[in-house]
Amino acid sequence: MTSHPVPRLSVSEILNPRSVAVVGASEDLRKFGSRVLNNTLHGGFAGQIIPVNPKRKRIFDLPVVASLDQLDDPLDVAVIAVPRDAVRDAVLQCATQQVGCCVIITAGFSEIDAAGAVLQDELVHIARGAGMRLIGPNCLGFLNTHARLLLNSSPAMTVTPFHAGAIGHLSQSGALMATTYNRGVEDQVHFSTSVSLGNQADLELCDFIEHLADDPDTRVITVYVEGFKNPQRFVSAARRCRSVGKPLLMVKAGTTEPGARVTRSHTASLASTQRVLEAICREEGVLLLDDVRGMMQTAEVFARFGVPTGDGICVISGSGGAGALCADRLAERDLRLASFSPKTREKLEVVYEPSQLGNPLDMGALKEKSFTRVGDGGLAIAAADSDVSAVLVAITTGPMLGDFTRAMAGSIKAAGKPALFVVIQGQADDGAREILKQDGLLVFETLDEAFRVLGCWMQGQMSAAWSELPGRPAGVPDLPAGYTMPPSPTEHEVKTLVARYGIATVLEETADTPDAAVAAARRIGYPVALKASSRDLIHKSDAGGVILNLANEQVLRAAWEQIMSCLGPNLESCLVCRMESADAEMILGVSHDPEFGPMVLFGLGGLVAEIVDDVVLTPAPITPQRTLDLLQTLKLWPLLAGARGRPQLDTNALCDMISRLSWLAHDLRDSLLELDLNPVMVKRRGQGAVAVDARASLRLNS
Amino acid sequence: MTSHPVPRLSVSEILNPRSVAVVGASEDLRKFGSRVLNNTLHGGFAGQIIPVNPKRKRIFDLPVVASLDQLDDPLDVAVIAVPRDAVRDAVLQCATQQVGCCVIITAGFSEIDAAGAVLQDELVHIARGAGMRLIGPNCLGFLNTHARLLLNSSPAMTVTPFHAGAIGHLSQSGALMATTYNRGVEDQVHFSTSVSLGNQADLELCDFIEHLADDPDTRVITVYVEGFKNPQRFVSAARRCRSVGKPLLMVKAGTTEPGARVTRSHTASLASTQRVLEAICREEGVLLLDDVRGMMQTAEVFARFGVPTGDGICVISGSGGAGALCADRLAERDLRLASFSPKTREKLEVVYEPSQLGNPLDMGALKEKSFTRVGDGGLAIAAADSDVSAVLVAITTGPMLGDFTRAMAGSIKAAGKPALFVVIQGQADDGAREILKQDGLLVFETLDEAFRVLGCWMQGQMSAAWSELPGRPAGVPDLPAGYTMPPSPTEHEVKTLVARYGIATVLEETADTPDAAVAAARRIGYPVALKASSRDLIHKSDAGGVILNLANEQVLRAAWEQIMSCLGPNLESCLVCRMESADAEMILGVSHDPEFGPMVLFGLGGLVAEIVDDVVLTPAPITPQRTLDLLQTLKLWPLLAGARGRPQLDTNALCDMISRLSWLAHDLRDSLLELDLNPVMVKRRGQGAVAVDARASLRLNS
Repeated sequence: MTSHPVPRLSVSEILNPRSVAVVGASEDLRKFGSRVLNNTLHGGFAGQIIPVNPKRKRIFDLPVVASLDQLDDPLDVAVIAVPRDAVRDAVLQCATQQVGCCVIITAGFSEIDAAGAVLQDELVHIARGAGMRLIGPNCLGFLNTHARLLLNSSPAMTVTPFHAGAIGHLSQSGALMATTYNRGVEDQVHFSTSVSLGNQADLELCDFIEHLADDPDTRVITVYVEGFKNPQRFVSAARRCRSVGKPLLMVKAGTTEPGARVTRSHTASLASTQRVLEAICREEGVLLLDDVRGMMQTAEVFARFGVPTGDGICVISGSGGAGALCADRLAERDLRLASFSPKTREKLEVVYEPSQLGNPLDMGALKEKSFTRVGDGGLAIAAADSDVSAVLVAITTGPMLGDFTRAMAGSIKAAGKPALFVVIQGQADDGAREILKQDGLLVFETLDEAFRVLGCWMQGQMSAAWSELPGRPAGVPDLPAGYTMPPSPTEHEVKTLVARYGIATVLEETADTPDAAVAAARRIGYPVALKASSRDLIHKSDAGGVILNLANEQVLRAAWEQIMSCLGPNLESCLVCRMESADAEMILGVSHDPEFGPMVLFGLGGLVAEIVDDVVLTPAPITPQRTLDLLQTLKLWPLLAGARGRPQLDTNALCDMISRLSWLAHDLRDSLLELDLNPVMVKRRGQGAVAVDARASLRLNS
Repeated sequence: MTSHPVPRLSVSEILNPRSVAVVGASEDLRKFGSRVLNNTLHGGFAGQIIPVNPKRKRIFDLPVVASLDQLDDPLDVAVIAVPRDAVRDAVLQCATQQVGCCVIITAGFSEIDAAGAVLQDELVHIARGAGMRLIGPNCLGFLNTHARLLLNSSPAMTVTPFHAGAIGHLSQSGALMATTYNRGVEDQVHFSTSVSLGNQADLELCDFIEHLADDPDTRVITVYVEGFKNPQRFVSAARRCRSVGKPLLMVKAGTTEPGARVTRSHTASLASTQRVLEAICREEGVLLLDDVRGMMQTAEVFARFGVPTGDGICVISGSGGAGALCADRLAERDLRLASFSPKTREKLEVVYEPSQLGNPLDMGALKEKSFTRVGDGGLAIAAADSDVSAVLVAITTGPMLGDFTRAMAGSIKAAGKPALFVVIQGQADDGAREILKQDGLLVFETLDEAFRVLGCWMQGQMSAAWSELPGRPAGVPDLPAGYTMPPSPTEHEVKTLVARYGIATVLEETADTPDAAVAAARRIGYPVALKASSRDLIHKSDAGGVILNLANEQVLRAAWEQIMSCLGPNLESCLVCRMESADAEMILGVSHDPEFGPMVLFGLGGLVAEIVDDVVLTPAPITPQRTLDLLQTLKLWPLLAGARGRPQLDTNALCDMISRLSWLAHDLRDSLLELDLNPVMVKRRGQGAVAVDARASLRLNS
């Protein structure tokens, strides 16, 4: 690998340039370059703006240069919006002129075909050799509101009211980036930065996340991604966001097979399963959503109110029906209605019919029924309750609505607590939307949007599951240098490996003859199991190679004959194993995700596992304590915890075993394709857990 | 019960009155009565409109009558909007004047307290005695767009553009009724009728559903309910809607415990569980939603396009990202992207880059990249494909958007296929919303709304599960007249009962002595189980009253001793039962829902049932064929069907058993509180299924 010159500009300097040029500018707004120029002028950028066009003297009243080599000073950013066949020359000229960064709007590169990919690689090669960075190709550009720079080809820029904000947004889709900006401002969602990433030929998602983590104008980071160029770097970038206290929200497309078919055609990225992605996000504190608009609304709530200080929600509505529906939907999302204190209740009973007083507050149950005397529906009283951390106001049609809204807006501002207002009706709002927005309050159009935002925002409270890599626990050995295993190890070889990590395996011996098996059984104690042992035999049970519950020498010898007659000459030896029983059968597994590396999985084993999906997947390594948290999210937890008169099982031993297995996964990394311990018998508290069967497959040439 | 005079007017006549009076009218729009009058005038009602007020001569330029007894002609509808203490006298006067129906706006009756309930009952008594009907009290009134009658107290009426439609809406919440009307019209959702049901003292939900089923102006019926006054009548009304081909959509509040706490304070209705409600709706073809706005949008799609003719959906978007997200969300809802035929593909390859061509269609992958030549993105070609039954267009910002939208609108209208347009951005739509609405096309503001509508609309296709009550199958006996059982029957008594219905139960005999048990075991064949039999012993196993797998006389006698020592003198006798084994253990149960009557339940039994909720609940009776449909929705189905090399089990016998049990539930009705067959052992195909254990509890005094 050749070493490249240090880039002339940092990402921060690129997004805050002193000068920008638009190569391919004109006055025809149907063309990309002219829209970039027009948007840049519209935004009010204070730096130098240079149209480049050999055929014009002035464009939009700006002096034009014919070519970049006519510039005296070094240029920070050049926007390239010329036909595809002219892009290479334009980039070459930028490199020669020591431009800091090219933003390549032009499409038709790696997203189209192999020839496009080759051309794209050439652009990167040119740029890197010159210490120049690239954004795109196949992108819309970026915007930085704090620099008033709308360096962007979208027609949405000029029709969107300008508003600086605290959300840094990164989008792998150009059209969605512009759409999100426009809808966002209308939704009172305000951006610090937004970047259309395009093909990410050079600068990629993580470059920008890392920048935004440090950017003083950005408090929340949102990303729309279709695939990761560098998944491990994404994990590091997510940790950086967490360490500086900036929520990182993500929508990822391609989480289902039909969606993945689409994103595969956009990106060349490897695809992890949705399950792996969810595990990574859960453990790294990334908030995963399924809708971009919802993500932006949630980000705005984080930007305004930070992380919630409690989980009690107060709902107030002009309609008992809307209140009841809110209660249902909040409960379904595991969101909690605040409990009013006796003191709060006492005060509320002055304004409400006591028999109909509760949370949600139903303004139809106000004592004053004429609606001619208007108050705040008791909102000031309710919001002051210490269990109320957020207020959801569901506005419906009714008399004197404007006055009610004004009173509620005043109360919530005085209370200083986070509030989401939903105006359910259309234009029959008696000015409510306008009143609220003028007071700087957040207004939503549908209850669903508000529920989603509340749900995700409340998750932000709990996302600090573990903030540091778990340390290597005592007793977990480092694997000896040069450790190798055959690609298809035998069951006994796998058990020997896991035993090195302190994982209890069933008592067993290898036997080459029936006599040896009988001698082994005598040492182990009847009943025993007899299992064929062969490097090539993956599904031993299906092949008739496992016979359980052998109670004495006679049946053991008969079993030996039976296995021999089934499997014949290929058989190398048999394992004689102690029969283990337990109150719960678990399955523990390790896999290697192509993007995110070693993962560990644990959950319900046995017959039921075939029909019930009750497993947790999580990145390795993991501490026993965090394992316990995750174990408690499984449906089988009551079986382990001793619910309904059952014995308590040895969850300490189980969590310890899972943690040790995760270190094994961590140590072997991609040389281990998968490893299963199935079943693991979990015994009663104090009696441990033991792996009864084990198999693994390793990567060839590792 | 005294017989009442026949009501003077039908529901249809009440909703299409010749004359209406407003008792309590004034010109002060802060008051209910004056708003009703104002709205009625605003709507343009062609019938007689009479303000009643003893203190005024003219209101809103209409002549006023001082009192109803001054009217010469009989009045169809009187709106009562006077203070609560004056309501009784007003209703009494209406009764005397032979008014057809009183719409009582005034609140403060059964929803407030016991005194209010007594007063409300009195109003009903007065009305029924006079052949007069009541709507309300505590309601907003109703509207009938085809009569241009907005007889309604909501301030939303005058600010909502008037538009007649085909949706009949019934709402147990007044504020939601008006809010829904206003938002609906803005969402292009158009009403034939909307009724605020209030306390339903006389006319109730089902009266109006039955009317709307017959109403020629109504094609779709939507209801918001908090509780049913007459659940069984609701079932009949739902069947009537189905029989006339009108979709019935419902939002029910109080489906969670926090929501139910709210609705209980509104209504005195008994509450079924959410599970029962879902079962009833599934079997009666009622489409259950969780959001009123979403329900109305779905209703409009039914009103415009009827029931879908197929399930293939075509998605087209200006953003590949939006397309990918659509694919993900549709897949999550089990909605299917249409597969383009080779011929369609061939035509599309003229306009799209072949490598990026698929469904969703991504207009970013059009060959023409300049966006200066505008087409419909291949929509005409795609919509013509025979696998496309609906089109979802996801509009994002982009150049020449208005022109693209115009072209797409033209193509979809020419194709004549159902289409949902979502405009994701805000005002940067280049006129798209306006263009689409002017063309009469449906526009949504968020993708989520469109997904919900598509999901529910597609369900409409499958809701005709069974349209008639199952006939009593051959071999299911009528229970003999006067059949009784003790409230706590023994296991053997329950098994005898179910055996009368042709349900196979385990071979067993009752034994009073150890010798009798041994003799029985000899006839049955070892191994056997020994079970204590006692009327008072509900949890036999927990009390040490069940010993399984007794292989010979010696262990049987020992087991007898052990059970005697555990249970002592209370024990009446023991059951000696054949040991049954099987490849799947099921649980079958019967329960009696306080609202909807006998229900049958079936699903996974055994230990796992404690942690895995894999059961179906459905109203009794049920046919074996329908049972099979439902069985196939369970996670355990692969175990029964013989997946992954397992034996096929006797699902015929199982479905037959469940159907027979459902007839037992049907026959015993509310005298049977619950009955469980647990476990039922399902054997291999042709070998049947057998109930091993049974218990029941019956209602006292039945």
